[in-house]
Amino acid sequence: MMNKQLKFIKRPEGLPDASTWTIETQPIPDIASGEFLVQQHYVSLDPAMRGWMNDSKSYIDPIAIGDVMRAGSIGKIIKSNHSDFQVGETVTGWGGVQQYAVGSEKNWFKVDTSLAPMPMYLGALGMPGMTAYFGILKVGKIKEGDVVLVSAAAGAVGSIVGQIAKLKGCYVVGIAGGKEKCDYLKNQLGFDATIDYKSENVFDAVKETCPKGIDVYFDNVGGDILDAALSRLRMHARIVICGAISQYNNLDETKGPRNYMSILVNRATMQGMVVMDYMPEYREAAKVMGQWLMQGKIKSKEDIYEGIENFHETFLRLFSGNKKGKLVLKIID
Amino acid sequence: MMNKQLKFIKRPEGLPDASTWTIETQPIPDIASGEFLVQQHYVSLDPAMRGWMNDSKSYIDPIAIGDVMRAGSIGKIIKSNHSDFQVGETVTGWGGVQQYAVGSEKNWFKVDTSLAPMPMYLGALGMPGMTAYFGILKVGKIKEGDVVLVSAAAGAVGSIVGQIAKLKGCYVVGIAGGKEKCDYLKNQLGFDATIDYKSENVFDAVKETCPKGIDVYFDNVGGDILDAALSRLRMHARIVICGAISQYNNLDETKGPRNYMSILVNRATMQGMVVMDYMPEYREAAKVMGQWLMQGKIKSKEDIYEGIENFHETFLRLFSGNKKGKLVLKIID
Repeated sequence: MMNKQLKFIKRPEGLPDASTWTIETQPIPDIASGEFLVQQHYVSLDPAMRGWMNDSKSYIDPIAIGDVMRAGSIGKIIKSNHSDFQVGETVTGWGGVQQYAVGSEKNWFKVDTSLAPMPMYLGALGMPGMTAYFGILKVGKIKEGDVVLVSAAAGAVGSIVGQIAKLKGCYVVGIAGGKEKCDYLKNQLGFDATIDYKSENVFDAVKETCPKGIDVYFDNVGGDILDAALSRLRMHARIVICGAISQYNNLDETKGPRNYMSILVNRATMQGMVVMDYMPEYREAAKVMGQWLMQGKIKSKEDIYEGIENFHETFLRLFSGNKKGKLVLKIID
Repeated sequence: MMNKQLKFIKRPEGLPDASTWTIETQPIPDIASGEFLVQQHYVSLDPAMRGWMNDSKSYIDPIAIGDVMRAGSIGKIIKSNHSDFQVGETVTGWGGVQQYAVGSEKNWFKVDTSLAPMPMYLGALGMPGMTAYFGILKVGKIKEGDVVLVSAAAGAVGSIVGQIAKLKGCYVVGIAGGKEKCDYLKNQLGFDATIDYKSENVFDAVKETCPKGIDVYFDNVGGDILDAALSRLRMHARIVICGAISQYNNLDETKGPRNYMSILVNRATMQGMVVMDYMPEYREAAKVMGQWLMQGKIKSKEDIYEGIENFHETFLRLFSGNKKGKLVLKIID
């Protein structure tokens, strides 16, 4: 039994190509006192990964060349030197893209797979769900009747953002790429309106779908879509900056929001959020989210691919948009 | 006795030229019941005027073609049909660029010229002073020890922002154009450091003067200087968007802040402010500001020109930077 690992071996410029990573097979590591060994079933694929690959100051250290690719993960304990973590229990943490990871109590949490399947703990009940929850409630500060616009609305974060906003009595408009995704948002998730950025002029469509303007814009994409949202702010609007996937692989300079003066005119607030800041509140939020999922008030959708060897092509789906919901890779053989 | 008025007759593109305005001479208007007639001594020249001249949705209606040019002003009551406003009293309000204006209790306030000279009521004790006060305290939320960076630091707003921040125990760095202005900030106003954007690389200079990064950036200019500030934010930094003078006459598209992702990385907040929102609190703020001025804790500097005929060339000083402190035009003959 060996440990297949995906090693990060070259910093990409623009969209990563296959030479960014390599697969290595190593012996399964030993565990020290207080540690446990996790056989990893699934790893999470998230847009934020692209940022971690750049050698620049950010909210987290860059991944070092030669390291196992950083990723959230979930699996089962198969060996333990920690009395609170038993063999057979399911845990989620930062195991990276490898089949076996050494865990400790510091960054790993036990989860109950009788309540939700493993992949959901990487989605609605994991980092994307927490991002949506704290982002729209604590930073977006939504209240009943607000007009809420969400980009990447069919994605892992956006789909939860929109559903929480609906639950709170907001009018919710989602921006996504393609008719299929837009239909899904409207028919399955209850969004009030959608904008297909691949076939519509987003500026015009924002005006049409939000005739009274926007109270909260939750941004996952940046670029022209952020500008379109800024052009239609209501007084005291809040813009949650959660990501900018349109810019992550940009080889030119990042495109700044040229309509930012709308922030002055409308006394708006643009605020950045990083989910890790809310870690002390995860447990409480996950409880609420779990109830919403069980009651069917929020739907979670995972798009699951298989095989650590297929990491690269699966990763590219984050940027092509060729995925449905939360992107997860099954890596257990 | 006639009323010389500066009429706004053509919307400019880019920097306004002389054909934007014309001088007309009209009879002095009658006053109705409850009104009073103000002989105006000084009008205020502010960067915001440029925005009012565009035919676009903003925080205030655009100036209509043919109207008297909008401006804050100060003068003496020479005729009154209002029992609370007596002939001989000094009042400040929105009289526009004309020698006589009809006032009412709605938008005019009495001021005491035994405490401060008239021009100061258009500067530190007027709109620029209130902008600085509420902007740095309520939006910037400065606290002792904060590193505060201010652009257009020798201007009417920026010079007060920096002095208030010093009073509150902050480390204050001012950006201004030219050695003379920078020397003034350091030697007269007590700024800790300055950046001369005309002779220094602002990105490098921000790094040098704020080695630990910036807690609060008060922006009056936009453009590259905003980007330089964004590149050096500290965690939970606040960016006060008060103006963007570098962009007001821009015939191309506004330059958006390409470093805006620093807002995410540093969980920062960028917020727009318009001073009129704080009108209910002006009186209290003016009292505090008046005390600071009397105690010499804050210095006010007005740059006074003369003659309504010289409005246009005086106005251009706002954008060339060829002025020292608050720009005021004396229009009484």
